[in-house]
Amino acid sequence: MTEHELNGLFQPKGIAVIGASNNPLKAGCIIINNMIKGKFPGKLYPVNRSEENVAGLKTYARLSDIDDVVELVVLITPASAIYSIMDDLDERMASKNDVRFIVCAAADYAETKTEEGIKRQERLMQAKDKYGIRIIGPNCIGVIDTMSRVNTTFVDTGVSEDRFGPPGGISFISQSGSVAASILAWGASKVIGIRYNKFISVGNMADIDFIDLLEFLEQDPSTKVIGIYMEGYQNGKQLIKVMGRIARKKPIIILKVGRSSKGSVAANSHTSSMSGSDKVYDAAFRQYGILRVEDLWELLDTLQAFDKMRLPDGNRLFVLTQAGGPGIYCSDEISKYDFIETPMVSENTKNQLKETMPRMAAICVPEGYADITASATIRQHCDSLRYVLMDPSVDGVCFITVVTPFLPSAQLGKELSDTYWSLDEKYRKPVYFCIMAGEAVIPCRRELEQTGLVTFDSPTEAVKAAKNMIIYNMKREKETQTGQ
Amino acid sequence: MTEHELNGLFQPKGIAVIGASNNPLKAGCIIINNMIKGKFPGKLYPVNRSEENVAGLKTYARLSDIDDVVELVVLITPASAIYSIMDDLDERMASKNDVRFIVCAAADYAETKTEEGIKRQERLMQAKDKYGIRIIGPNCIGVIDTMSRVNTTFVDTGVSEDRFGPPGGISFISQSGSVAASILAWGASKVIGIRYNKFISVGNMADIDFIDLLEFLEQDPSTKVIGIYMEGYQNGKQLIKVMGRIARKKPIIILKVGRSSKGSVAANSHTSSMSGSDKVYDAAFRQYGILRVEDLWELLDTLQAFDKMRLPDGNRLFVLTQAGGPGIYCSDEISKYDFIETPMVSENTKNQLKETMPRMAAICVPEGYADITASATIRQHCDSLRYVLMDPSVDGVCFITVVTPFLPSAQLGKELSDTYWSLDEKYRKPVYFCIMAGEAVIPCRRELEQTGLVTFDSPTEAVKAAKNMIIYNMKREKETQTGQ
Repeated sequence: MTEHELNGLFQPKGIAVIGASNNPLKAGCIIINNMIKGKFPGKLYPVNRSEENVAGLKTYARLSDIDDVVELVVLITPASAIYSIMDDLDERMASKNDVRFIVCAAADYAETKTEEGIKRQERLMQAKDKYGIRIIGPNCIGVIDTMSRVNTTFVDTGVSEDRFGPPGGISFISQSGSVAASILAWGASKVIGIRYNKFISVGNMADIDFIDLLEFLEQDPSTKVIGIYMEGYQNGKQLIKVMGRIARKKPIIILKVGRSSKGSVAANSHTSSMSGSDKVYDAAFRQYGILRVEDLWELLDTLQAFDKMRLPDGNRLFVLTQAGGPGIYCSDEISKYDFIETPMVSENTKNQLKETMPRMAAICVPEGYADITASATIRQHCDSLRYVLMDPSVDGVCFITVVTPFLPSAQLGKELSDTYWSLDEKYRKPVYFCIMAGEAVIPCRRELEQTGLVTFDSPTEAVKAAKNMIIYNMKREKETQTGQ
Repeated sequence: MTEHELNGLFQPKGIAVIGASNNPLKAGCIIINNMIKGKFPGKLYPVNRSEENVAGLKTYARLSDIDDVVELVVLITPASAIYSIMDDLDERMASKNDVRFIVCAAADYAETKTEEGIKRQERLMQAKDKYGIRIIGPNCIGVIDTMSRVNTTFVDTGVSEDRFGPPGGISFISQSGSVAASILAWGASKVIGIRYNKFISVGNMADIDFIDLLEFLEQDPSTKVIGIYMEGYQNGKQLIKVMGRIARKKPIIILKVGRSSKGSVAANSHTSSMSGSDKVYDAAFRQYGILRVEDLWELLDTLQAFDKMRLPDGNRLFVLTQAGGPGIYCSDEISKYDFIETPMVSENTKNQLKETMPRMAAICVPEGYADITASATIRQHCDSLRYVLMDPSVDGVCFITVVTPFLPSAQLGKELSDTYWSLDEKYRKPVYFCIMAGEAVIPCRRELEQTGLVTFDSPTEAVKAAKNMIIYNMKREKETQTGQ
């Protein structure tokens, strides 16, 4: 598969939605609305036998009734309707021969392992065999491309458009539709909603699979980091090979389930995928520098870190905190990863901090740690961050503050952000901002995030993202050194 | 110390706030406002030399100027003012002899290990030595009692009063002021804000310490579960003994930091507390069934679980999911804890599920697991939960749903809640509701939580709370069996 082919999926001339609906509780309604809300600039053709128009758009009884070019067909009908729909497609292809992609959302295909389900999937796959049409799904929630504004998913995140950021560099592939929906909803609920670059729910992978999509994202210039939720894959060896190659160019963050024997049986009955020996996967991920994460939060936070920050130059992480308790907690978290080193800052840096921070501040006791105390002003927050970032021994900073009543939240965010971006490029090292706590500090976090910085709920999340960035960097450096 | 004595702290006749202020950026302003917003029914006396009134309340230049009874004095002034304040207190005690408690919020006392800091703390402690006044702090953020509406903290959670629930049974002791502030803010930011029962930031523990407070909470009838954030304690052996005794009656959930050598050095420079050998603490906690948690989220979620749910009768946890991916993920999480067992439900329960759930549902493949699929209706959600809860082999349920567009979010919550509460008491076993994902499902979660059920962000949190409930139950059962 060349990159061109899947580019077509994300930039189709004309999309037909079979099963489009005006009923707000139906997926076929939400797809159309998502596309309209998302300002999809192309042509959209609802197909529904019993409606004259859907969301104000002229609606067709059959796919073959549409005169204009349709390159992408989205199926959002019950699986039992597949036979008549494919007959209709045959008719269209006989006259127009224009459809190049199908996204098939419904479940109840081969994943059920029933005779009927397998038969339905076979009928769907005839579109590929006869016309070379490429298929996503079935048993998926569709695809999104925020660049071309194609969105065939039926997820309503409940978050208004103005809460989202601009399109970022995170592309995501999910084997589970419900995990995909959750990742979209959680991303939307972040301080500034994540607008994924490409988003693909692959479902049964009857045709287009992990490898096809990874190779597409490998060459996609707007994809900076790739996230994956995976249950299993038939050809694990080949997959790892491809992932390993891509990971040298773009970080791959994977949440693979089916670790346990019970999870593995459940995975098999879910997407009918053998999860394979988890230990083998785990070792392979490690070998190739593919970052395996433990949970959904680490997945999202790590994706954001890679998207927004530059890679650290090394593994020396400084803890700069305005709050003692969370600082200690952060040190404990860091100590879980023995490859993270303590930066030994210069006497000059120590003196700068000692001279300008509150008298009670604990500077470099222990090394690589400074507690500027709750009496620190906004200026002292900013100055301490600048001094630490400019020290050559520091590769990254966990910056913690528990916003007190004395610190206007939004102003703190703005001044920290100004401080960071006014630094010379070489000093703009990764900073993991933990701004605590809860809803009260959203104004501060929003100010930071609006300028492209990343904030975390607590040191737990910040340190996990930091260690993933460090692992990736160390792996790539090693490859460069050994000329691999 | 008898329980009576600390009851006085939480139900004082008259509170004087030294350092009360009208400046909204000062702690002395927020204390007064928190007390007014929280409808404190008692007498409040702001003390400030340069204001005639604070927040509309008559303000006194000195503590000794207040004619009425003052049992609790809150100090929110810089530590350097301690000498003149204590002189003023001496004057008051000579004539009125009414003050019984001091909450001293400011830092810069003995924790700095400076001569001056130690001297200040000694002067403060003379109030105890001379008059038997009991002292909280210094270097803390104060205390809250939601029953008596005393609130001497200066945390503005930014969450409106109507987002909070009624007073619950969670009492919390924090050695760090900033962790205390974060716990308050995170609790407030939950789907329904947590109203802690008693909340105490202990700071330097110059006088009142962990043991005093634990013994108070032990006999406090409205405290159901105790949460602790701890850095270290001089007399660890004695503390463990008291905690072990209390844990038999009320669960104690502890986040103890200083695990790592670096964290331990930082802890020492923070509250001047030796964190002690972490391994010794860890073993002791285990031995006495004191629940040590890993992070701040597990702390909060576990506290809520113990507060709201009854203890499980055993360790057999069923996974009931409407979403394949999250169900597998949940099984992986459960598999981390080998003491959690798989319930083997009866043929009758299996048949009930098979007959009423969508045809594609995977029932008990593997055992103890059911995937009712994304096509499940609200009725099917409710029926499946009821069948599983009524099976005698089930001690608890992880219930997962990724709300689809076809399920009206609030209605799903309401019907699930009705189903649960209409069951016979014996079937109202612990249910860990994972309602996914993000802001879109807040209406569903709110409906559930309003009736006293507990919801979680994802299976990660649900399983951690469940395993903590199971550990506690197993420990208590073992004690009963062995007659310990």
